[in-house]
Amino acid sequence: MKKIINKPETFVDDMIDGIIAAHSDKVCLMKNDNRVLLRTNKKEDGKVAIVTAGGSGHLPLFLGYVGHGMLDGCAVGNVFASPSASSMADMIRSCDCGKGVICLYGNYGGDKMNFQMACDEVEFDDIETRQLIAGDDIASSPNETSEKRRGVAGIVYAYKIVGAAAERGMSIDEVMRIGEKTLANIRTMGFATSPCVIPEVGKPSFTIADDEIEVGMGIHGEPGIEVRKMMTADKIAKLAVKSILADFGENKPKKVSVMINGLGSTPLEEQYIVYKSVSELLKSENIEVVHPHLGEFATSMEMSGLSVTLIALDDEMQDLLEDVAQTPFYTNYNR
Amino acid sequence: MKKIINKPETFVDDMIDGIIAAHSDKVCLMKNDNRVLLRTNKKEDGKVAIVTAGGSGHLPLFLGYVGHGMLDGCAVGNVFASPSASSMADMIRSCDCGKGVICLYGNYGGDKMNFQMACDEVEFDDIETRQLIAGDDIASSPNETSEKRRGVAGIVYAYKIVGAAAERGMSIDEVMRIGEKTLANIRTMGFATSPCVIPEVGKPSFTIADDEIEVGMGIHGEPGIEVRKMMTADKIAKLAVKSILADFGENKPKKVSVMINGLGSTPLEEQYIVYKSVSELLKSENIEVVHPHLGEFATSMEMSGLSVTLIALDDEMQDLLEDVAQTPFYTNYNR
Repeated sequence: MKKIINKPETFVDDMIDGIIAAHSDKVCLMKNDNRVLLRTNKKEDGKVAIVTAGGSGHLPLFLGYVGHGMLDGCAVGNVFASPSASSMADMIRSCDCGKGVICLYGNYGGDKMNFQMACDEVEFDDIETRQLIAGDDIASSPNETSEKRRGVAGIVYAYKIVGAAAERGMSIDEVMRIGEKTLANIRTMGFATSPCVIPEVGKPSFTIADDEIEVGMGIHGEPGIEVRKMMTADKIAKLAVKSILADFGENKPKKVSVMINGLGSTPLEEQYIVYKSVSELLKSENIEVVHPHLGEFATSMEMSGLSVTLIALDDEMQDLLEDVAQTPFYTNYNR
Repeated sequence: MKKIINKPETFVDDMIDGIIAAHSDKVCLMKNDNRVLLRTNKKEDGKVAIVTAGGSGHLPLFLGYVGHGMLDGCAVGNVFASPSASSMADMIRSCDCGKGVICLYGNYGGDKMNFQMACDEVEFDDIETRQLIAGDDIASSPNETSEKRRGVAGIVYAYKIVGAAAERGMSIDEVMRIGEKTLANIRTMGFATSPCVIPEVGKPSFTIADDEIEVGMGIHGEPGIEVRKMMTADKIAKLAVKSILADFGENKPKKVSVMINGLGSTPLEEQYIVYKSVSELLKSENIEVVHPHLGEFATSMEMSGLSVTLIALDDEMQDLLEDVAQTPFYTNYNR
């Protein structure tokens, strides 16, 4: 497996250096910790700060969403590994603007444990913290135990909406209310057709047969619901939309935004082919689609496949989704 | 080779339908020809129009750059095949705003022949046409015969700068002057590490050995300068920068924009690792870098590898590069 890198050991630091070199107008490293990214221009005092953390190998996730209108900071781990609790605590201290810090991150054991420790630590500094944990992957656990669901690409919608609420200067209680509502309305289903390779391992940590597709696979290769014979784009779209709408149950959305997220090596052409089918299916269900998101938002390096995310929007969430944002990997100027 | 499609025969049309479904605020199909994309809101009368054309399989190239501040229209061919001369002629007629139409496209035989026929055809309609042909791939021919060079990712810079000049309302002579200067200042070098698969063929049309990299390979798999043993990111960066600067010769740039373009399945992480090295090399040559472009701009479906482009900028080109643009795959709001 060929990777365009220098050494596996310097993969993460070289990548971060490249991002800083390219986007120093938007992001910078935290003092004394080259694994924490902050905004180059810190948010004004008196606003709630939003921070995240996660392993590397998922660009643009997680660090790519630090910037105006989204995140204030991101702690960066090794490939598929959680960053340390002490990095998280330092980040929270650094990002606090006097109105508290919300930690918004995906539902993974290491991140949860470390963020909990970090939040406990900064309590001594009189910094109020809250936690919002994204678990949008409907394939990772049934609806009845949705608290066990993994966080995948749908977290980007939460970064955008929660980030906009904080940027507007809302109180921490208001931002939390919006964040909880947002997370409850995001559903994702992923489909993987080939594995990825962790640089320090050098070979795929799992395999997918030449004529098969993994339905519901996680972004670290976690097993999904089932292995199927390779499907057409239309069938993938139908299975995703049907499963996600079933999971919404009686709260069938009236208006959604759709994200088709490439997992790494799936061409844009294929993402648009799936989108065509998804948008037709939603139309036939009388569901309005606004602000489609296509491209790569949460990847697994060179894994191939894609995920389909729906977020059910009310007017408040849509309004926040449309606010200006400017980060290295997400720009919104619709207003 | 797995592709997330419906049928190879509907690959291009399904993809176009998906793009229209997602981006109907920006692009639409031309009446009576579902292989020509136009701006949803036509440019004002009295401005020069800029059109392009090219085969499919290169998203965001070519059609992804139709929109305000860039292109007025794009004729879309089958995978790696030129669209027809009659589509191009209809597009030129449709895009003309009374001040002439510039056809800006890559240096490929089919596109050249068809655009020439189309321009001859619209002469009878009293539409003034001019041609700008991009040939930025320094690996495809020596400097002495640079007119033979293929057009690759660097054409995106030309779309941006020429499109901005036209959007400002400059005369066709002025836009041509800027276009010729721009094209003369773009240099690209590509590196491929795995091939791609044309949907209707179903298997790779060429192979790259497991431990090798093709230096200078074109975006359709055209052979490059040489096959080498797999190289590190630093070595790739060095070879690209050294070769491109040598090709500039005595006109060593003072200020450049750098594009690191993923060919399809190369992770963003690897592009940033190469960018780190490229930006350090340019710094050591006392060359200023502005407005870096990283991501996928011109792909070959699932081909892996990347290309490095430098454009030497003077103040006029930089100013135009910074103008507002809004297309499905390129947004610029720096002002």
